[in-house]
Parts: sequence; C-alpha cells; structure tokens
Amino acid sequence: MKIVIDTLGSDNGAKDIIDACVEIYNLKKIQFVFVGEEKFLEKQLENKIEPKDYEIINSLETISNDEDPVRAIRKKKKSSMVMAFNRLNDSDCDGLISCGSTGALLSCGIFITGRIKSIKRATLAASIPTLKGNSLLVDSGANVDCKSEFLRDFAIMGDIYSKFVFDNKKPRIGLLNIGVESHKGNKLSKETYKLLKNEKRIDFIGNIEARDILNGTADVIVADGFDGNIALKSAEGMAVAILNQLKSALKSSAKTKFAALLFKSELKNSLKVFDYKEVGGAPLLGVNKAVFKAHGNSDKRAFKNALLLLIDYIEKDVISYLKEELCLEKNL
Amino acid sequence: MKIVIDTLGSDNGAKDIIDACVEIYNLKKIQFVFVGEEKFLEKQLENKIEPKDYEIINSLETISNDEDPVRAIRKKKKSSMVMAFNRLNDSDCDGLISCGSTGALLSCGIFITGRIKSIKRATLAASIPTLKGNSLLVDSGANVDCKSEFLRDFAIMGDIYSKFVFDNKKPRIGLLNIGVESHKGNKLSKETYKLLKNEKRIDFIGNIEARDILNGTADVIVADGFDGNIALKSAEGMAVAILNQLKSALKSSAKTKFAALLFKSELKNSLKVFDYKEVGGAPLLGVNKAVFKAHGNSDKRAFKNALLLLIDYIEKDVISYLKEELCLEKNL
Repeated sequence: MKIVIDTLGSDNGAKDIIDACVEIYNLKKIQFVFVGEEKFLEKQLENKIEPKDYEIINSLETISNDEDPVRAIRKKKKSSMVMAFNRLNDSDCDGLISCGSTGALLSCGIFITGRIKSIKRATLAASIPTLKGNSLLVDSGANVDCKSEFLRDFAIMGDIYSKFVFDNKKPRIGLLNIGVESHKGNKLSKETYKLLKNEKRIDFIGNIEARDILNGTADVIVADGFDGNIALKSAEGMAVAILNQLKSALKSSAKTKFAALLFKSELKNSLKVFDYKEVGGAPLLGVNKAVFKAHGNSDKRAFKNALLLLIDYIEKDVISYLKEELCLEKNL
Repeated sequence: MKIVIDTLGSDNGAKDIIDACVEIYNLKKIQFVFVGEEKFLEKQLENKIEPKDYEIINSLETISNDEDPVRAIRKKKKSSMVMAFNRLNDSDCDGLISCGSTGALLSCGIFITGRIKSIKRATLAASIPTLKGNSLLVDSGANVDCKSEFLRDFAIMGDIYSKFVFDNKKPRIGLLNIGVESHKGNKLSKETYKLLKNEKRIDFIGNIEARDILNGTADVIVADGFDGNIALKSAEGMAVAILNQLKSALKSSAKTKFAALLFKSELKNSLKVFDYKEVGGAPLLGVNKAVFKAHGNSDKRAFKNALLLLIDYIEKDVISYLKEELCLEKNL
C-alpha cells in the first residue's frame, strides 16, 4: 500500500505528521510519498523509515483557506496539495491525506482525482464523536445549495462508509432538520425526506434535530453542507464556551483549585468522548481514490488516528463498493 | 397597559404563569386578560389581583406542536391561542404572550394580528445569552426558504429591538455563515451579504461563524430560520451533553462528590451566563402588535423575565419605530 502525505498546511508544522507516519510504519507495511520541504523531510525521516519505503516530492508552496480554491489549484501547480494529488493519480498510489485547505482538497479531489461516475457531488464526511460512538455527518461543509439527489447520494455513501469503516451492520440514516415530523423543514429537506424514505438501499429513520446529534440517535446524518457546517461549528462554540467557563470557575479560589485536583482525571475521561482528535479525519467520499482531510490543527495523535482510518478504508476497498452501489441504480 | 396572557400550552401548567403575573402586578400597573381554564384561573387569582384589573376568557383547547399550524388555527377557533389573539385585536389590548406552539403563534400573528405594512415575513427573534450579554438571533426558526430581502428586514427589525430593549447604542449586525470571508456561503448568504453591506440603517460587521455566536461577536445575528434553528439546537445539544457528562463524572466516587460540594456554587454561577431562563422569551417582530413567545417549559422565573421584556417593548413603543423605519425606504 502506498499513501501520499501532504506534509504542508498543518498549523502544527510537519514534524507531528512525520512522527505519526513513523509510528504507523512500525506497525504496518506501508510505503509513503511525502510532499513538502525536501531537506526538512530528509532529516526527519533519516533512520526512521527505510529509503526503499518512501519518496519525497519537494514543494514549499501552500494554498490558504482564504484563497478561492478552484483558482488557487489552477494557479499554484507547484503547491504541495496539487503535487500530492497529481502523484495520487499514478496507479501505484492508493490514498492521500492532507491537513491543508478544505476547499483546495475538495477541488483537487474533483478536478484531479475525478468523481465516481454517476456522482454529481463529492462529500466531506465528518466523524462526530457521540455518546454512542462515532456518527458521520454528510455533508460537513463541502457542498452548499444542494439538491435532494445530492443528499440521497451522500446518504448512500455515508451508509457504506459507516458499514465498512465504523463496522455498523445497519447504519441508521437521519436527515438533519428543524423538527422530527415529516412535514417539517424547508423545501430541500421535505424533498430529501421523500427520496430517502423510498430509498431501499438504506435504513432511513427520519428527521433528526441538531440537539440529538450527540446522543448518537443516527449513525449517519445527512445535510446540505451549509447546515451541516453550522451544526458542527455551533456545537464546537458551545463546548469551548462551557469549558472556558468551567476552567475559570475552577481557578477562582483556593477551594475550587483543590476541587479541581480531586476530579481532574474523571473530568478529562468523561469529556474524552467528545474529543475529535480520537477520530482525526474526514474522508472525501465520491472521488475515485481514497482521500482524507485531517484537521488543520492535527497533533501527532489526531493525524495518526486519521491515517489509520484511511488505511482501513483502503484495505477494505470501500471505493469499489461505493462505485458498485452508486452505479447500480443508474446502470452505469 | 393591558396584556393578554395565554395560560395554556406550557409544559409546567398555568400556575407558574399566574404566579409570575401576580409578581409583576405587584410591581407595575398592569391589567391582564387571562385565557384558559376559567375555574382554575379564578381560584388562582382570588385576592391576588384586583377584579377590576383582570378578565378571564374561558378556553380548554390547545394547539400542539405536531399540528399543522395554519390548519389548526382555522379549525380550532376556541383554542386559547386563537381566542387570545382575537382579543389582542381589540384596541384596549397592547400585547400578548404565550408558551404554546411556535408555529401556531406565528400563524396567529400573521393572520389575526397582521403584518406591518411593507414586511413580507415576521420573524421570531431569539435572545441568546452570550459572554458579552444578550445577542439576538433573527430568524430563529419561524421562516425557512427565505429570500435575501426577508433577511434584510430581519436585520433592520433586530437592530431596532436590540437598540430599544437591550439598550445597545449601535448594534453590530452579523450574518450567520460558514466562513467570515465575503465570498463564503451559499447563494442566499452571498446575496444577503451584498444587501446588508449596502444597507445604511444598520452597522453590518460581515459574516459570523456559528462557533463565534456565544462570544458575543455580534449583537444581532441574521439567518434563514432553518439555519438559525440548527445553530440554536446544536449548541443546546452540546451544552446538555457536556453537563450530563460533567454530572456523571462528579457522581462517580466519594472523592469527586466531595469535589462537587467544594465548587458547586462557583460552577453554577459560571454557567449562569448561558441560562436561557434569564431571558425567557422571544418577540415576534414584524406584526402590528407586541407579541411574545415564552419557552414551552418556562418556569415562573423564565415567564416573569419574558413578561418584563414584553412590558419594556410596549412601554418604549418599539412597534412605532419598527413601522417608521420599515416603511421609510418603501415610501409606504
């Protein structure tokens, strides 16, 4: 198995990425293509990964989140993202992972790797740690102004990913909406409800409200990327706000500092369920090869967990199942 | 001042509502029209509010959240909601408050009270307790499939409400979006961005992401009701999930129970900022009279706070300013 690693674009620099790869290398037979600053990479990899098991593609250029992605990938041919995706197109490469710009990754996936025949939109499927394990949010922000058929495809792809990578035998598919009743919602959600209800390939459990996501009510949550992204970031904002308030309260006096000492480990453990670093990355579903987006601020642990998911995704040959299932109906 | 109180439709029954009204009555010169179960109300009000200061309209029928609101208000002419709104239309009544179905309240507001001339959609403006005081979310779920002009009107109404009721001299108006850059978002948010940028009546600060709502980055957050509702409920879901985990962690051993005792009051205080019961209710902006939606599970404190806001809204004659500002441009 050969994986292309875009080592640029991470908030924490390339070192954590390399360290994660080295740890995985010691566990599994994997070859790497590292794209990034050649000299730095050579130094980091020396005596850690055998020279036959890696290659380096030199690149010093990144694409930022502020740039228009489509324009950027056309203009920045020497950026690590574009070079990584070009290398992925060679038949010896099986997958790619990057911490870089989400928009650029999506654009490269669509324009360089290419969409699976019959799919109109590729989706970035975010893993959400819930009280009942991981749920998958499709779409998490890659596609806005969706049509109901796009959301139906997201549901089918999310279903397959959940089955193979999260080992859910029969994933429960829910539609993100502002009420659970079938008549609730906007034009898109009402149309999508009908499509999903009639879709035999999935176990559609109906609408789910944003407040129930973390309960693990659905294994796969289907949404337009605009709404999915708002749900994700709103929950994140609340988590940060509460934890900050909690920290201040615990630091407010000698008494509360003592209390903090007493239950620090239990608190950490109890909140671990919501730690996205346990999951680490999101697959770009609907393109012809295995592509993963790791968080921009991934540390070693987060990147390692994302890489493990990518390896699992490749080993189980999920892409083949996706192609089969998606082309089935349309006889392509 | 005369206020119509719909006493049905609260999860906690009518007693908390009456008790809140009695407390307000002892502070301010207010007359009430109570709509609900006559015998119960008579008993509750005896010797608490002078007979000259209240009347009772008997109704035993409610409209549930599951019902189609427009159909329900047409069919259930004797429901407390419909009877309350019909009474509000009389010239001696200044405002109305209800804990009942949001959809029914919105429909009654539009079809019985009537929209302000020039306004196409009335908006339910939720108050969000943030680290910097209350922010206002317009729309919080009443209107889905919005057009950019609706959102522009929401912004103007939110601005006026924030000025008068929250005493913000120059409210910062933000547009809920999935990125802060002006080119980010879906078709609606891009169109709305342009409209708000050119709108001289407000101080538009640009896009804001859902994760920044609780920081108080904007005083008024403008959104399509679908997205606004998802942002609200997603944050709520995270808050409930974290607090439940926290409670379990604090109960897990004798040591942690002791820790809980030590910092209980500080914890409570620090999380009080996010307590919606401090705010209590949401105004329905854009209709011809002062209408408030109180939370379905309001207790006495929440209802009292909502009622105080409604009184403030009436006393400051905000509706007149709304009419003036909204009709200005359109020369109506």
